[in-house]
Amino acid sequence: MKSLGHHILVEMYGCDPSVLNNIELIETEMKNAAVEANATVVDSSFHMFSPYGVSGVVVIAESHLAIHTWPEYGYAAVDLFTCGDDVDPWIAYRYLEKIFKAQYASTVEMKRGQMDAVVKGKEMRKNEIKELIGEVVQ
Amino acid sequence: MKSLGHHILVEMYGCDPSVLNNIELIETEMKNAAVEANATVVDSSFHMFSPYGVSGVVVIAESHLAIHTWPEYGYAAVDLFTCGDDVDPWIAYRYLEKIFKAQYASTVEMKRGQMDAVVKGKEMRKNEIKELIGEVVQ
Repeated sequence: MKSLGHHILVEMYGCDPSVLNNIELIETEMKNAAVEANATVVDSSFHMFSPYGVSGVVVIAESHLAIHTWPEYGYAAVDLFTCGDDVDPWIAYRYLEKIFKAQYASTVEMKRGQMDAVVKGKEMRKNEIKELIGEVVQ
Repeated sequence: MKSLGHHILVEMYGCDPSVLNNIELIETEMKNAAVEANATVVDSSFHMFSPYGVSGVVVIAESHLAIHTWPEYGYAAVDLFTCGDDVDPWIAYRYLEKIFKAQYASTVEMKRGQMDAVVKGKEMRKNEIKELIGEVVQ
């Protein structure tokens, strides 16, 4: 079924804890993963927490990549959300898996904005959409 | 089953398109939703796309809230990812549902970092974790 976006939710277990606590490396590699997947990086925001752990997001023109790490557990939660047919979030996944040296990982892929539901919602708002943008996209 | 975080993936259909195209309002209300849910806002990054659509992320001390909007479809994809027992992502959900005036919405809640898998991964890395942080968290 066609959808506006693809979102991979990744759990990485048994990662290298020193990588998970290295904010510079994580920010660089999350941006690299976006570029590898053919995404356009718009902005990024990364933060180091006390006593350990990194959170960060790369906003891309095609949605976002996000990460939260728990070095004390060797665990990272990674989100790879991309839109359109030109960007492949699985390329970003395979890239990052190597960086974090996960002993094992699990992934769930969710389709975001399934087109049948999107079209129904658009129909309910078509007059307001036309008023806002001068047309109703088919 | 215990987990480190809770992540609600929200699809909002038939939203008010003028709200979905208002970057200032969306940034303000995404931050308000974080505060309502008892989260601590660390940073935010919001962007307006041409010809329409807004993407943005609020990094919170307890993970992140993210949104991507398609005003031309009346659709928004919202992620509400929180960690710990003090923050309730469902409060953020109920707050935002009213703001975007969705005609209908669907939600999926995912547990992120299930503790049994986290503990197994930690065990595999316990020597490196001890070296990094001087202890192994129980």
